[in-house]
Amino acid sequence: MQFSSRLIEDAVNAFAGLPGIGPKTALRLVLHLVQRPTEDSSQFARAVSTMRQNIQHCITCGNLSDQSVCSICRDTRRDKTVICVVESIRDVMAIEETQQYRGVYHVLGGVISPIEGIGPADLNIDTLVQRAAEAEVEEVIMAISPTIEGDTTIFYINKQLTEADVQVSSIARGVSFGGELEYADEVTLGRSIVARRKL
Amino acid sequence: MQFSSRLIEDAVNAFAGLPGIGPKTALRLVLHLVQRPTEDSSQFARAVSTMRQNIQHCITCGNLSDQSVCSICRDTRRDKTVICVVESIRDVMAIEETQQYRGVYHVLGGVISPIEGIGPADLNIDTLVQRAAEAEVEEVIMAISPTIEGDTTIFYINKQLTEADVQVSSIARGVSFGGELEYADEVTLGRSIVARRKL
Repeated sequence: MQFSSRLIEDAVNAFAGLPGIGPKTALRLVLHLVQRPTEDSSQFARAVSTMRQNIQHCITCGNLSDQSVCSICRDTRRDKTVICVVESIRDVMAIEETQQYRGVYHVLGGVISPIEGIGPADLNIDTLVQRAAEAEVEEVIMAISPTIEGDTTIFYINKQLTEADVQVSSIARGVSFGGELEYADEVTLGRSIVARRKL
Repeated sequence: MQFSSRLIEDAVNAFAGLPGIGPKTALRLVLHLVQRPTEDSSQFARAVSTMRQNIQHCITCGNLSDQSVCSICRDTRRDKTVICVVESIRDVMAIEETQQYRGVYHVLGGVISPIEGIGPADLNIDTLVQRAAEAEVEEVIMAISPTIEGDTTIFYINKQLTEADVQVSSIARGVSFGGELEYADEVTLGRSIVARRKL
């Protein structure tokens, strides 16, 4: 693209460096900001840099926080005897959205994936084993995506937790609630039959 | 969405305020920035706010520039006898990309659209009429989208320019070069026949 100013080019490149944003979308965003008051752009820039400078991973669970311990781990009303293990911060948000869970979390930061070169040492597994060994912890719930990598991760963590005196469970998997049987994929339907529960 | 920090919420809202970016995409962008070094976010924020603070519309043509007169209007090698009238800065970039035009531009900032409440007074038409009246200007090329609003705008500007001693022309419209006739839309094909040229 031919830019009339180096400053516009820099701003377009900054946006185009974000995932899923191509040069045309980046230009559209920059032209939008140019049409808005200067204060809007300053506020936008401030929100981004302030966030990045002050945000950190909770030293207990790995969730994002603006303090060394996150708001969920600090909350005295949360049940510290149950730890829900998830891949990412997005999963914490999704589970919090359901308002069905009152325990605490542990964010792995991914799943074991030999293809992508992610081994157990790259994930927050050691800290989970340490937490699970604490006297108050009674249950570890694995809320990991039902993929090959996810299952490998669950298998590995389950083995690491054998010495800790905790019950390890997995979130229920099967046909979606409210979903029609005929639209469920084969694997899900097949496993749902194998993993049937007594009524 | 349930955010673990107000700072993340602010950053997500900042991104979600941009056109075409929903809350889920905004969260993805913020989590991407969190995973990258702090310096990346600072640089991103700096590029956006520096651009907005220093960018302005060229006092001659309306193009975006970091100086009061844009680089194209300043360029002594550009042919100042020809002015190409366009709707937006994006059109300037598209025409510059072709490397087929060596004249200067005039950016209207839109087209006349009674439905959207945009009248001639909302566009940079007065400044165009002033420029066209200058002795050196010989031709005004209308490079406006072939829509009803575009045609209305061309008709209006053409009338305003009758007193100026300039030739007013429009970019060629017809079947796309390299396009198959059968795939051209009816209106384009019909007008191409009416506007046929002698070989």
